[in-house]
Amino acid sequence: MVEHSGLDSQCLNKYCHSSSSSSSSEHDKKMFAKLKLSLSGDYPRKNGEILSGQYGTNLLLLGVAMMLAIQGEPAVREEHLLAFVTCLMILQLIWMLWYMLVRDRQKNTRTEKDVHATTCWIRGGLTLLAVLSLIMDAFRIGYYIGYQSCVSAVLGVYPVIHATHTITQVHFLWFHIKDVIQSFETFERFGVIHAVFTNLLLWCNGVMSEAEHFLNNHKSRLFALGYENLTIMHTEPDCNCTTSTCSLFSRSLFYLYPFNVEYHIFVSAMLFVMWKNIGRTIDLSSNKKRLATKIQGLHIGPILGLLALAGTIGVMVVYVTNIEESFQTHNSAISMFYIYGIAMLAFMCCAGSLGLLIYRADHMPPDTSKNPSRQLDTELLCGSSIGSWLMSWCSIVAVVGANSNPPFRWTNLVYSLLVVLEKYTQNLFIVESLYRQQEDGEREDPELPAPPEIFSVTSSLAPPYNGIINQAYETPDRICVSLENEEEESRQVYRCPRKPSEVSLSVRNEVKQPLNIKSKVLKNIAVFLIMSNISLWILPAFGCRPQYDNGLEQDTFGYSTWTTILNFAIPLNLFYRIHSVASLFEVFRRV
Amino acid sequence: MVEHSGLDSQCLNKYCHSSSSSSSSEHDKKMFAKLKLSLSGDYPRKNGEILSGQYGTNLLLLGVAMMLAIQGEPAVREEHLLAFVTCLMILQLIWMLWYMLVRDRQKNTRTEKDVHATTCWIRGGLTLLAVLSLIMDAFRIGYYIGYQSCVSAVLGVYPVIHATHTITQVHFLWFHIKDVIQSFETFERFGVIHAVFTNLLLWCNGVMSEAEHFLNNHKSRLFALGYENLTIMHTEPDCNCTTSTCSLFSRSLFYLYPFNVEYHIFVSAMLFVMWKNIGRTIDLSSNKKRLATKIQGLHIGPILGLLALAGTIGVMVVYVTNIEESFQTHNSAISMFYIYGIAMLAFMCCAGSLGLLIYRADHMPPDTSKNPSRQLDTELLCGSSIGSWLMSWCSIVAVVGANSNPPFRWTNLVYSLLVVLEKYTQNLFIVESLYRQQEDGEREDPELPAPPEIFSVTSSLAPPYNGIINQAYETPDRICVSLENEEEESRQVYRCPRKPSEVSLSVRNEVKQPLNIKSKVLKNIAVFLIMSNISLWILPAFGCRPQYDNGLEQDTFGYSTWTTILNFAIPLNLFYRIHSVASLFEVFRRV
Repeated sequence: MVEHSGLDSQCLNKYCHSSSSSSSSEHDKKMFAKLKLSLSGDYPRKNGEILSGQYGTNLLLLGVAMMLAIQGEPAVREEHLLAFVTCLMILQLIWMLWYMLVRDRQKNTRTEKDVHATTCWIRGGLTLLAVLSLIMDAFRIGYYIGYQSCVSAVLGVYPVIHATHTITQVHFLWFHIKDVIQSFETFERFGVIHAVFTNLLLWCNGVMSEAEHFLNNHKSRLFALGYENLTIMHTEPDCNCTTSTCSLFSRSLFYLYPFNVEYHIFVSAMLFVMWKNIGRTIDLSSNKKRLATKIQGLHIGPILGLLALAGTIGVMVVYVTNIEESFQTHNSAISMFYIYGIAMLAFMCCAGSLGLLIYRADHMPPDTSKNPSRQLDTELLCGSSIGSWLMSWCSIVAVVGANSNPPFRWTNLVYSLLVVLEKYTQNLFIVESLYRQQEDGEREDPELPAPPEIFSVTSSLAPPYNGIINQAYETPDRICVSLENEEEESRQVYRCPRKPSEVSLSVRNEVKQPLNIKSKVLKNIAVFLIMSNISLWILPAFGCRPQYDNGLEQDTFGYSTWTTILNFAIPLNLFYRIHSVASLFEVFRRV
Repeated sequence: MVEHSGLDSQCLNKYCHSSSSSSSSEHDKKMFAKLKLSLSGDYPRKNGEILSGQYGTNLLLLGVAMMLAIQGEPAVREEHLLAFVTCLMILQLIWMLWYMLVRDRQKNTRTEKDVHATTCWIRGGLTLLAVLSLIMDAFRIGYYIGYQSCVSAVLGVYPVIHATHTITQVHFLWFHIKDVIQSFETFERFGVIHAVFTNLLLWCNGVMSEAEHFLNNHKSRLFALGYENLTIMHTEPDCNCTTSTCSLFSRSLFYLYPFNVEYHIFVSAMLFVMWKNIGRTIDLSSNKKRLATKIQGLHIGPILGLLALAGTIGVMVVYVTNIEESFQTHNSAISMFYIYGIAMLAFMCCAGSLGLLIYRADHMPPDTSKNPSRQLDTELLCGSSIGSWLMSWCSIVAVVGANSNPPFRWTNLVYSLLVVLEKYTQNLFIVESLYRQQEDGEREDPELPAPPEIFSVTSSLAPPYNGIINQAYETPDRICVSLENEEEESRQVYRCPRKPSEVSLSVRNEVKQPLNIKSKVLKNIAVFLIMSNISLWILPAFGCRPQYDNGLEQDTFGYSTWTTILNFAIPLNLFYRIHSVASLFEVFRRV
């Protein structure tokens, strides 16, 4: 397959007519080489990435250092951290406004877009999360007004800037996130990576506040049970609230935190894809096909999913109300949680395995087209599993080595093993779904060659996530013709990608065909898994954290080690659940 | 550039002669496609990777969970962990022996090799580290014999298995690490990843033991200073030693730990590259050129480096002897450490920046050839910087927010800032050096085209680390010819790689030419940086850890948070230093 760069094609248009004549001499080639060298003579791309990536990492680490300091001595207070984060947000705001202004001016010049970067429904979901974040900002402002006389002004400025930041960022996401930046690359790289790490820092900050809240709840429970040597951090200011709504605001905040936290991590993942895309040349021929979201034949999946969701809400209410009661009720609430979890996870394992079996029966070569967004999805999925896996293995070690024998000891073991297994199969299922080539209607037409052949030349050669299939995007047709001419000579299996018009035609034909049985089963599996993952997100996000309450792990690992593990693992697990929902929705549309 | 897979080429040889005739019909093509599909119809590669990667991750997490449990309740003891690790090592041993046996039988069939996977001097260095590990095992066996009557038998079995494991593994590294596995891919993937994570777990175990040792030292110092509510973990067994050498053995062990730890992490990085290579098709035309390790013009670099090394040993001795003395001596030892560190780091920053400036003046297009080993090097370098950066930012926050004012307060600030800056520039310098195309002697010959052109077609198109340049490795020449024929038609700048024989000829010509001034300066910089990094490895590896001793950070972050940060950051920093030495040596050979 022929690859050539944007620079090459510019060059081809501007200067290289001499070489198009049949008498292209050695001299021409040399001139050409020099020209190329001087054209690509700006700051090397790899360096730009390292330079900006290191800047962003250090930004985050400084923020994390401040967060860690807040936990200790009061020399560093929350105001300092908020002031730092506010500065970062203002910087990002300035950059985004500058960027949008520049793009607006260059309206006439065509900007490349990465069609894989995001989908409409992801942006829609993010807008919803952003609205909830705005409500949170409003509550924060209300809280500040109540305590205005005795808290730092930063607590008032922060939500105002955060709200402005959120609105601008959502606008940016809707209109610019797919841009493939080709100018001022090094500068833009800094701008985008600054945005990535600002959002990551906001995520860390949200996670920290949430963890503190849970820890305080946990401590007050322990205090009620008789442990007296624990200090509960008081977050209430010293003066009285001048309005009547302060405590309402501060309590409501904690129900909004989970949404705010997911908003920031999602945005940073999307911005990261934008950063990876800077300077890339997009293969226009691999434009995404319009996916038909067919819903016929969807019965078992949604029904089971809704049952899971309803059951989850029931379990959550019972758990949260019973956990603060007597020792007996406390223990039975934990047992109930584990038994419910085992049932859910067993069903999810079966669904995932069934999906994998269907894939084994229906062989399809991998789709190796370049797609940084999909690659990041896979990495985030596997990476964020680590949190929950660590927690599960710790539980397993604790259960096996425990001296006490509470009623939930062995259910905890089974639950933890199933958590490991469920993530294992689900990750495999999602990754295989995303990396399979999509079935076309054409495959039923025996006269046309199978679509996998389009990518056959690289499919088994290149590692799937590194595979690049790039067409010269300005003259794809001509090159195809020239290659097909020499096809017999070089004995390559070769087929030029069909033109987009052909592809969309064939898809449109396909829309009218009914779904086959395999697709129906896979769609049901995807829907069920989506709803189950939402359920398993709801439980820890809104207070069901038996890892804090069951005491088994805490006895084995000690209080401080175990809370450190949880503070690391639970946010990752929450992110995993919400991220797998997004990935499974993509799977749902593909199968 | 034309890419095709190993499967294609097999197919080409066996079945496809019919299509070589000029009358290749539509029917032939379809048959071809079906054949390809059935040939590549085994378990998808991406799934194999996820399947085995997840297995390895869970293995590691189980081990980590056990390690964390050992710190807490005595329900889980060190014996359990050692028994688990021993089982893993035995499994790996069996796999390695099986693999070597199979390879030995298939001697006649050619095995692909990844020339980039490792170099002779890396393997030599690893062998040295392995020998030190063997000495450590001998000490452990001696220690076990002394206390035989009262310690678990696992403590005796572990060093024996570890020694066998080390010897077999070094043999494996010498003869098989470059293999590109093409058969039993899914099974082999499990074997290799098992080896990767077993070594990673051994690394974690070593790091934990080391950290415990330092923490105990630190606690006994605090105890001597009057803090009495700290419990020092006693690692001595309950009975008396039957030989006279027990305490000698246990003391010597801690001087050997740093080497053992580096050995395991290095081996796991190399095995990881082998894992990434499974199923890959190697581009034979990108065979590494013989690098000429010229040493003429090396004066300033080695001299400054030797000065740094000598100074380091002096500082280490003074620090270790003075740190346990009176408060005054203690503080001046810390001050001395920081001042020495500032001087070193300032020189290193200058050296790195000078190197980058030289690169800016001497433009060279990036080398985008596929090289998983180099990509991993880059990621490990940037990834392992995080530990030391986090530590530095924490120090900065602590210094700025501190209430006390010890004499080393502001030197600590400058030192920490310089640590951040030095890693920043050094990483940039190393990455740019590794990703630049190597200069050839030919460039001085104006009649020959510039070598960068070889890669010109992808160089600015593909992201550097994803760039794939693959030749049909069995018939490169034929394809070149066919492509060159159509060069004028498709208007591509195209150049076939020269044959290896030509390349080595030109290199041999070049060897006789003197180094130019830029190369001389760059070589001096590399040598200086190598020696400086060795110095900065020696200091924390053998006891100079002012982060434990200065008390500033501990006051700000609290004892447990700060020791957790150090236990995470110091091992990463040690790995960073030793890894950058290896990378800089590669840089030294390239410039």
